[in-house]
Amino acid sequence: MVYQKVLIAGQWRDSKYPVGGFNAVNPATKQALAEVYPVSGEDDVNELIAAGKRAAVELRNVPVERISRFLELFAEKIEAHTAALVDIANLETGLPKEPRLRNGELPRTTDQLRKAAKAARELSWRNATIETAVNIRSMMGPLDGPISVFGPNNFPFAFNSVAGGDFAAAIAAGNPVIAKANTGHPGTTLVFARLAFEAVKEAQLPPGTVQMIYRTPPELGLKLVSHPQIGASAFTGSKSAGLRLKAAADKAGKPIYLEMSSVNPVFILPGAVEERSDELAAEMFGSCALGAGQFCTNPGLIIVQKSEWTEQFIDTLAGAFDRNRPGILLGSKGLDSVGNAVEVLQSAGARLIAGGRKVEDEGYRFANTLLRVDAQTFIANPHELQTEAFGTVSLIVVADDIRQMTEVASVVEGNLTGCIYSNTQGKDDEDYAVLEPELRTKVGRLLNDKVPTGVAVVSSMNHGGPYPATGHPGFTAVGLPASMLRFAALYCYDNVRPSRLPVELQDKNPTGTMWRLIDGEWTQKDV
Amino acid sequence: MVYQKVLIAGQWRDSKYPVGGFNAVNPATKQALAEVYPVSGEDDVNELIAAGKRAAVELRNVPVERISRFLELFAEKIEAHTAALVDIANLETGLPKEPRLRNGELPRTTDQLRKAAKAARELSWRNATIETAVNIRSMMGPLDGPISVFGPNNFPFAFNSVAGGDFAAAIAAGNPVIAKANTGHPGTTLVFARLAFEAVKEAQLPPGTVQMIYRTPPELGLKLVSHPQIGASAFTGSKSAGLRLKAAADKAGKPIYLEMSSVNPVFILPGAVEERSDELAAEMFGSCALGAGQFCTNPGLIIVQKSEWTEQFIDTLAGAFDRNRPGILLGSKGLDSVGNAVEVLQSAGARLIAGGRKVEDEGYRFANTLLRVDAQTFIANPHELQTEAFGTVSLIVVADDIRQMTEVASVVEGNLTGCIYSNTQGKDDEDYAVLEPELRTKVGRLLNDKVPTGVAVVSSMNHGGPYPATGHPGFTAVGLPASMLRFAALYCYDNVRPSRLPVELQDKNPTGTMWRLIDGEWTQKDV
Repeated sequence: MVYQKVLIAGQWRDSKYPVGGFNAVNPATKQALAEVYPVSGEDDVNELIAAGKRAAVELRNVPVERISRFLELFAEKIEAHTAALVDIANLETGLPKEPRLRNGELPRTTDQLRKAAKAARELSWRNATIETAVNIRSMMGPLDGPISVFGPNNFPFAFNSVAGGDFAAAIAAGNPVIAKANTGHPGTTLVFARLAFEAVKEAQLPPGTVQMIYRTPPELGLKLVSHPQIGASAFTGSKSAGLRLKAAADKAGKPIYLEMSSVNPVFILPGAVEERSDELAAEMFGSCALGAGQFCTNPGLIIVQKSEWTEQFIDTLAGAFDRNRPGILLGSKGLDSVGNAVEVLQSAGARLIAGGRKVEDEGYRFANTLLRVDAQTFIANPHELQTEAFGTVSLIVVADDIRQMTEVASVVEGNLTGCIYSNTQGKDDEDYAVLEPELRTKVGRLLNDKVPTGVAVVSSMNHGGPYPATGHPGFTAVGLPASMLRFAALYCYDNVRPSRLPVELQDKNPTGTMWRLIDGEWTQKDV
Repeated sequence: MVYQKVLIAGQWRDSKYPVGGFNAVNPATKQALAEVYPVSGEDDVNELIAAGKRAAVELRNVPVERISRFLELFAEKIEAHTAALVDIANLETGLPKEPRLRNGELPRTTDQLRKAAKAARELSWRNATIETAVNIRSMMGPLDGPISVFGPNNFPFAFNSVAGGDFAAAIAAGNPVIAKANTGHPGTTLVFARLAFEAVKEAQLPPGTVQMIYRTPPELGLKLVSHPQIGASAFTGSKSAGLRLKAAADKAGKPIYLEMSSVNPVFILPGAVEERSDELAAEMFGSCALGAGQFCTNPGLIIVQKSEWTEQFIDTLAGAFDRNRPGILLGSKGLDSVGNAVEVLQSAGARLIAGGRKVEDEGYRFANTLLRVDAQTFIANPHELQTEAFGTVSLIVVADDIRQMTEVASVVEGNLTGCIYSNTQGKDDEDYAVLEPELRTKVGRLLNDKVPTGVAVVSSMNHGGPYPATGHPGFTAVGLPASMLRFAALYCYDNVRPSRLPVELQDKNPTGTMWRLIDGEWTQKDV
């Protein structure tokens, strides 16, 4: 069997003693693709960690300009290979070439890499804090080992283990990355890894700065996140896999950042339904069906109040679910998982009002599925009724009044996002004031009159939220430089001689523009 | 049996169905004190959590000025009751009334409370971040439940569960506190809780903002940190207890901040020993003996290079250890634990050069103990030889050269602090450059020519460090406002209507002086 090569310790080489091989499958045809990728065994993993650790030590002496240059070179190379990336990602994921992959996700990916480069170069992300009276100075610095990144299946570019947001943030914070490809798109990841490694060489970074394997047996994934020489890990994917990795990392005292599951509740207050029912139904359907419903921020839960307008809204929405052809799901496992989730929701008391079954088709498709349940039932069984179905599947919860809507909010689990739609003329303002405090602490990002899908890469973004959406409510996976803080440690210097301080903490502002907190004032000046 | 009362849900009341009682012991006389404190059972714990959760919800609607006022009132009351606090803390801990308790720890405690009040009022700690082009705004806000605080035995004031740094930070960030007194000083904690509760009433905070119990069976401690309605926990104490709490909190996805153990390596380069051997020995002994050696930042590991000066330094230091009367340890458990640690160190190859035994005395005292080991032995058995002895016990590691010193640094575990002493005329600068990079990632605070004991309460402090010193390398337990970030979640507002935004994120700067990051610039201006 000829396997594709892995990237370990600066070498493209055969996997040492692989424990198996696998193919990617085209979800549009259900056909396996030709290339075979190795499942790495213990030898590969040991070498990854050792080389990653060496690279972590070496990177601490590399001028930050070279790290930024690497990120920019990589972005340029990605753009130069757009066609190849779009072709293979389309084959491996079934996501449309246009506009999704070429015009949406690819530019987003290069934008993230460039924003990470800019943040690294500007240095303000370090939160340099200086107290002159006592000569104690601190800033954020890299961790003491490489970051292992486990990317998800649903964004082959923007969250890719070796090109996406976690990768960009980890590198920009000065850490090497050990990328475990998502097994849904190994070929896409291979193309990225080739380009990244070319950029590593051109920017003269340590060769172990970027390493990549395709897959390991589960126990070696656990080893990767818990190894004493690992700095931290980032995982985006299913809750079950995420929790297994979390348990191993936690036990070893290693930070792990997870993005696991979210049903993203959307509360539509009565005045909004009365005002713009059809518009809302169209907006909701568009958000629910984006990427065949396989978005972390997909609205899986829509909470409304009983009324004739509400019934009309539900009918219109169900019509849109029925009428539109479902998108292609990422794989057969995803298809089964959506079916199972819909069954769980029904067993817990939800009633189907659209879809509910696999579609006989050349590709993996599940009918757009809308369910409904009354709020009382939801409140009595909130855990099962928040089962995430990773597809175009949403559950409408119909409440009697604002009190019951708020009670629904009170039993909602931790989520990435929560939306409140309300009347534009102020009719819902009292209800909003009751509902918002309950929802606020359950979600990372609170929206008004806007769908949760679409996560802007800006400094004020929070793509995070309370457990079980993620593992810690204080960090975001999207938005620079905030996402870099996940991969950093607080370095304090007490009475350290001036020449021995990192340039960021010396009296002279190293760039003239870096923001530093000196004696309680944010400034770009020298001490 | 008449038990002291617990403070639950705004009531001073008897513990419901306590599972036992205990007395504090005066470590200076080994005599039990008269008061008996209840060991709380499940009823108390359930009520604490429910009342804490209610208070968390209510606190979100309390103007921050009242929270700051509470912290300041509490500080005033502490000052007004200095004599009572100093008396009981001295009885319960054996720590000297003066200067330690009255002139050192008490003013530090009130200073922390006032700095927390100031930080809460100034609002800059929220890291308000605004991107005007997309109208996405974010800031740090309170967690979704109360903070359970487990204070240590060694700082009855400054780290007290109901008056210390964790308490101040949790409250200032807008969260209620459930305080579990350290069982070594229940009476001190009771006095603080009385004063705190008076201040709660005067500042008109929700009655459940401050609650306090003395002790629980271990399984209820686990329940407290892992309960779905808890926001987060803070623990300072032994590694074994800390790791048990961490496992429970991690499994439930609840943040927990730990400060567990640290041997605080001090590397003395040859040029420093040659230059000022006697001065260094005096400085080291002073730091080692502070608080009878029961400081988190106590220098438990001193690494030197072979030379005639070094032998003189060791002799002088051993002389100081021998000559000075050992301080009183906090309790009989601590005394046994120091004895056990010294045995572990000896079994692992360290040789006693001073002390090594319990002292026959009215109080709990262990002879000031100095051990020595060669670097090769240390490197071969680093884990056992980093056993923390919580007393005036230090291990000197003698290395052949800078290469071996650096190898020692490479096997050092995560620590709160690490010091490097070097020649003032630059003779050690080359060695420093070799050693520093290895030590930097192992410690939270790196010092030059300064003892690690003495943790300034300033914004640039890091009283934290890599595991196992703490549970996460990015957070500090001392220094305001940084320590507040442990008890906060990232709240993002996307397209939220202006009047619905928290004042911190509205266009107008709410204080005129709050620092906000608007479109990448730190400013005190309006949007």
